Amino acid sequence: MSFFSARVCIIGSGLIGGSLALALKKAGAVGEVIGCGRNEATLHRAQDLGIIDRFSTDMTQAVQGADIVLLSVPMLAMRGVLEQIQPTLQPGMIVTDVGSAKQSVIADAKAVLGDKLGQFVPAHPIAGTEKSGPDAAFAELFAQRRVIVTPLAENSEADVARVVAMWKCVGAVVECMSAEHHDHVLAATSHLPHLLAFTLVDSLARMDESHEIFRYAAGGFRDFTRIAASDPTMWRDIALANAFEIKQVLKRYQGELEALQHDLDAQDGQALFERFQRAQAAREGLKF
Amino acid sequence: MSFFSARVCIIGSGLIGGSLALALKKAGAVGEVIGCGRNEATLHRAQDLGIIDRFSTDMTQAVQGADIVLLSVPMLAMRGVLEQIQPTLQPGMIVTDVGSAKQSVIADAKAVLGDKLGQFVPAHPIAGTEKSGPDAAFAELFAQRRVIVTPLAENSEADVARVVAMWKCVGAVVECMSAEHHDHVLAATSHLPHLLAFTLVDSLARMDESHEIFRYAAGGFRDFTRIAASDPTMWRDIALANAFEIKQVLKRYQGELEALQHDLDAQDGQALFERFQRAQAAREGLKF
Repeated sequence: MSFFSARVCIIGSGLIGGSLALALKKAGAVGEVIGCGRNEATLHRAQDLGIIDRFSTDMTQAVQGADIVLLSVPMLAMRGVLEQIQPTLQPGMIVTDVGSAKQSVIADAKAVLGDKLGQFVPAHPIAGTEKSGPDAAFAELFAQRRVIVTPLAENSEADVARVVAMWKCVGAVVECMSAEHHDHVLAATSHLPHLLAFTLVDSLARMDESHEIFRYAAGGFRDFTRIAASDPTMWRDIALANAFEIKQVLKRYQGELEALQHDLDAQDGQALFERFQRAQAAREGLKF
Repeated sequence: MSFFSARVCIIGSGLIGGSLALALKKAGAVGEVIGCGRNEATLHRAQDLGIIDRFSTDMTQAVQGADIVLLSVPMLAMRGVLEQIQPTLQPGMIVTDVGSAKQSVIADAKAVLGDKLGQFVPAHPIAGTEKSGPDAAFAELFAQRRVIVTPLAENSEADVARVVAMWKCVGAVVECMSAEHHDHVLAATSHLPHLLAFTLVDSLARMDESHEIFRYAAGGFRDFTRIAASDPTMWRDIALANAFEIKQVLKRYQGELEALQHDLDAQDGQALFERFQRAQAAREGLKF
């Protein structure tokens, strides 16, 4: 099998899976894309949009003959999918995923795949928008974005290289690290901010003056609400899957808010200024 | 004096004051714009950019002959400016401001202006970007944005109407409400989100892995860092000026984070899902 005639089966044809399919096609890096999911209407839509070439709602059938199987479903659905495809996996087939937390899906794979565990190469593209579904998919989603691969001891170098190559050919910058480290960093950089935004929007929406609050939403709050438009199921699953790491960094943040509350109480302008200035300096040190 | 030949003195020629000057000029609604501030280089720059026609670092001189004096300085600088211009204010001159908190600047005006208090019409344009300084100013900043005017009992209807007219002619949607109500709503919709973003960016920047955290910054965190690029002095002053209202809504938010922490501890997927879904629904109810 050559890379460019590969048959890719995408389980879950939403924003991420759909965008990867479009990007692989645009790069001429895929022979056929088979879609798979529970919702037939969504699969039809994905086919109409040219994301997938054909589809099946039967997982065993969809996976048949695939070179790469991409799991692009919410974290808590991963285990069920792995259970269903396990018997169908042939030698040489690679299974990979796009989950935002890695230790949880690896634990699922270890529990389910048995001696086929080595065929599962975990990965996470750090890309997305607040939209979801096949209509939100676009080929350029991964251009210049980072993809983290967290290989298992059981993976062959060739299989890892193949997953890395797939992401590189859609324009991503690929890096490898341990699943533990990934989950620790992503809890801070992505999971906590999303949970804070969801919580703020929910909190204000339930205030008596919520109508007015949303009406006078200024720059700051608008950005929060954009984040909070993200898919609730996906984020529930991420929160549960990476709860341990999220709780650590949330606890730290709660401590910082106590300090903020204290500075406001004490009218400590110097402490407030220093906090805001450190944040501004950190932002300026970023290369976005 | 006709409205379109008005002489406007802008004390503080940064993003907001500078943008208003540009917008008034573009609308042909101003005769002359006089700049005033402490930093001569900034004033020269504002003149070069066509924001102001002339300037003085001497406040008494700058205000001389103005029809409208706009206070566009950080909240804690308001009182000093009011003190300096008080003796120069002639009958018919209107003083107005752009402060993000209204009760504090009104208290300053009451303490300082004496029988000229009626000439001060407090206002707040809900507009801005994370940038600051005259180079960030642009004429379209207020188009379709809300401006809240919080008139005093001492104001004449004619003076309030004049300030309302000024903002309308730069494209803003103007509404009147009490200063108390303004501060209550803005604490939730703007002040708290900014403080949360500053605090998160600062908190993560001081973690051991801060370099990596910023490197893998995904969508959510990027939005937070953008907010946190705002001017630290301006936000210190807002935090202090509206501390009472901010503390209430921050306390409420801290309670919500406790509940979030509890749901993560209990792995309560249902509670997490409902929270995220409420936030998403609230966002969808918005008309941005």
